Amino acid sequence: MKKFTFIYKVPWVDTDALGIVHFSNYFRLCERTEQELFNSLNLEGEEIFLPRVHAKCDYRYPLKFNQNAKVMMHILEIGRRHITLDYEIWNDDENKLSAHCTIVVVPVDKDMKSADLNENIIKKLSEYVDDQKK
Amino acid sequence: MKKFTFIYKVPWVDTDALGIVHFSNYFRLCERTEQELFNSLNLEGEEIFLPRVHAKCDYRYPLKFNQNAKVMMHILEIGRRHITLDYEIWNDDENKLSAHCTIVVVPVDKDMKSADLNENIIKKLSEYVDDQKK
Amino acid sequence: MKKFTFIYKVPWVDTDALGIVHFSNYFRLCERTEQELFNSLNLEGEEIFLPRVHAKCDYRYPLKFNQNAKVMMHILEIGRRHITLDYEIWNDDENKLSAHCTIVVVPVDKDMKSADLNENIIKKLSEYVDDQKK
Amino acid sequence: MKKFTFIYKVPWVDTDALGIVHFSNYFRLCERTEQELFNSLNLEGEEIFLPRVHAKCDYRYPLKFNQNAKVMMHILEIGRRHITLDYEIWNDDENKLSAHCTIVVVPVDKDMKSADLNENIIKKLSEYVDDQKK
Repeated sequence: MKKFTFIYKVPWVDTDALGIVHFSNYFRLCERTEQELFNSLNLEGEEIFLPRVHAKCDYRYPLKFNQNAKVMMHILEIGRRHITLDYEIWNDDENKLSAHCTIVVVPVDKDMKSADLNENIIKKLSEYVDDQKK
Repeated sequence: MKKFTFIYKVPWVDTDALGIVHFSNYFRLCERTEQELFNSLNLEGEEIFLPRVHAKCDYRYPLKFNQNAKVMMHILEIGRRHITLDYEIWNDDENKLSAHCTIVVVPVDKDMKSADLNENIIKKLSEYVDDQKK
Repeated sequence: MKKFTFIYKVPWVDTDALGIVHFSNYFRLCERTEQELFNSLNLEGEEIFLPRVHAKCDYRYPLKFNQNAKVMMHILEIGRRHITLDYEIWNDDENKLSAHCTIVVVPVDKDMKSADLNENIIKKLSEYVDDQKK
Repeated sequence: MKKFTFIYKVPWVDTDALGIVHFSNYFRLCERTEQELFNSLNLEGEEIFLPRVHAKCDYRYPLKFNQNAKVMMHILEIGRRHITLDYEIWNDDENKLSAHCTIVVVPVDKDMKSADLNENIIKKLSEYVDDQKK
C-alpha cells in the first residue's frame, strides 16, 4: 500500500495557551493533506465537493510551534458514495506519533445534493487504498 | 439526567465556500460549551487543564451563517483521570440535529503531567452525568 | 453618539502559545460585533454582503482565556458605497483598552459586484454614526 | 532591496461563504511568512517573541480555494525595539495584487516584558530592509 505524505510546518496561530497545537487544527491538517493528494493526482478540476459525515482523532503526543508535522495518509475504503480516509500525523522533529485520525467524506454537487464519485477519481485514488481492502 | 445548554450564533468566519460551518468548527463549539459549563459551576478558577485524547463528530445537517446552534451537553463518564463528554449540536433555526460529538479529556497540570480531577470538580459535574452510568 | 456594545467571552482556541488572544482574532471579533449590530437592527435579512477593503488594529493590552472582551462600536462614516467602522475592544476584567480597530467595508451583491447600500440600512445605522460626521 | 518570497496554497478552511479567503486570514498568512523568513535565517532558536502592536491590510482582489498566494515581504524599518514589516500578497494564479499589509512587532521576553532585539537578529534581517531606509 502506498501512503501519501505531506509535511506541514506548525504556524504560531495553530498553538494555544498550553503551547501546543489545538486539537481542532488536526482536522484542518487532515483536510489540507487531502487537498495536496487531490492536486498531486490532477483531480483539483473535478467539480466535486466532499463534505465530511464523520471525523475522529486520537491524540497521543503534542505538536509545538515551528515543528514539522508529517502526515501519512491512505484510503481505508472507497465506493461511489463515500471515501474513508486514514491519517497518521507524526511529530517529525521528535519522531513520535502525534495523532491518528479517520475521516469519512461523501460526494455532493454544488447544491449539496448527493452525487457519485466518477470512475476517474476512484481509479486515481485506488493506488492509496489499503491493500487488504482491495 | 440534566443537560447543559448553550446557544451559539454562527459567525461569518465559521463558514466555508460551501456556505456552511466548517467541520472543524464543531469541535471548537464543543470546547466553547465546556467552558460555559465550567463557568456556570464556578470551576473556572481550578488550575486544571483538560487536553483532549479523543474527539469525534458525526455530521447530519449543515449550519449556516447567523443561524443559532443549540448545544445540549452531558457527561457520559467521569473518573479521576478522564471525562467523556457528549454533545448534541442542533440547528435551532431549522430544528434539525446538526452533529453529534464525543470528546474525551484527561486532566493535566501546567507542565502537561497527568493529574487527578479533584473531588470538587467531580462532585459539581456529577449532575450532568448520564443517569445510567451512575 | 450611541455606541453598540457586545460582550465576548474569550474561548481557549483564540489564545496562542503566549497565552493571549492571537492578533488576527481581534478582526474576527470586530466582524462578530458587526453581525450583532445588524441583527439588533433587523438588517440580517438584507441581501447585502460587505467585504472589507481595509482593516487595521492597534494593540495595547492582552486578552486571556475566559476573560470578557467588551467591544464598543460606532460608525465613523457611512455612504452609499462604504461604511467605516470603529471598534474599541476592552479587556473588561482588567478595565484596560485592549485594541482599537477600524474596518472599511463596501457593499457588493452575491456576484461580488459593487452595489449601493439601500436607504433602510443607512437610516437604521445612522444612530451609531459619529456625531461630528453627521 | 531583497524581498523574501513565500508561496501559500489556499486551504478550504480559509474560505468563507462568499467563496473567498476571509480577511482575517491574510494577517495569519503574514505571520506564516515571517516564520519562514526567520527559519531561512536560522533565527528560530532565538528566544524572542514578537507581539504585534499594529496590523493593517488593504484588500484589492480575492483569493479562492486552492489558488497560490505569493507573499513578497520586506522590512520597512528595524530598530532595537520594533520591526515594521511590509507584505504584498499576490493572487499568483491570476497575477493580481490581492492585499497589501503592514505589521509592526515589538520584542518581548517570555514574561511579556519589553526586550531588545539582539545584534544577530538585526544584522541578519538587514538584507531585507528597504534600501531607502538604510
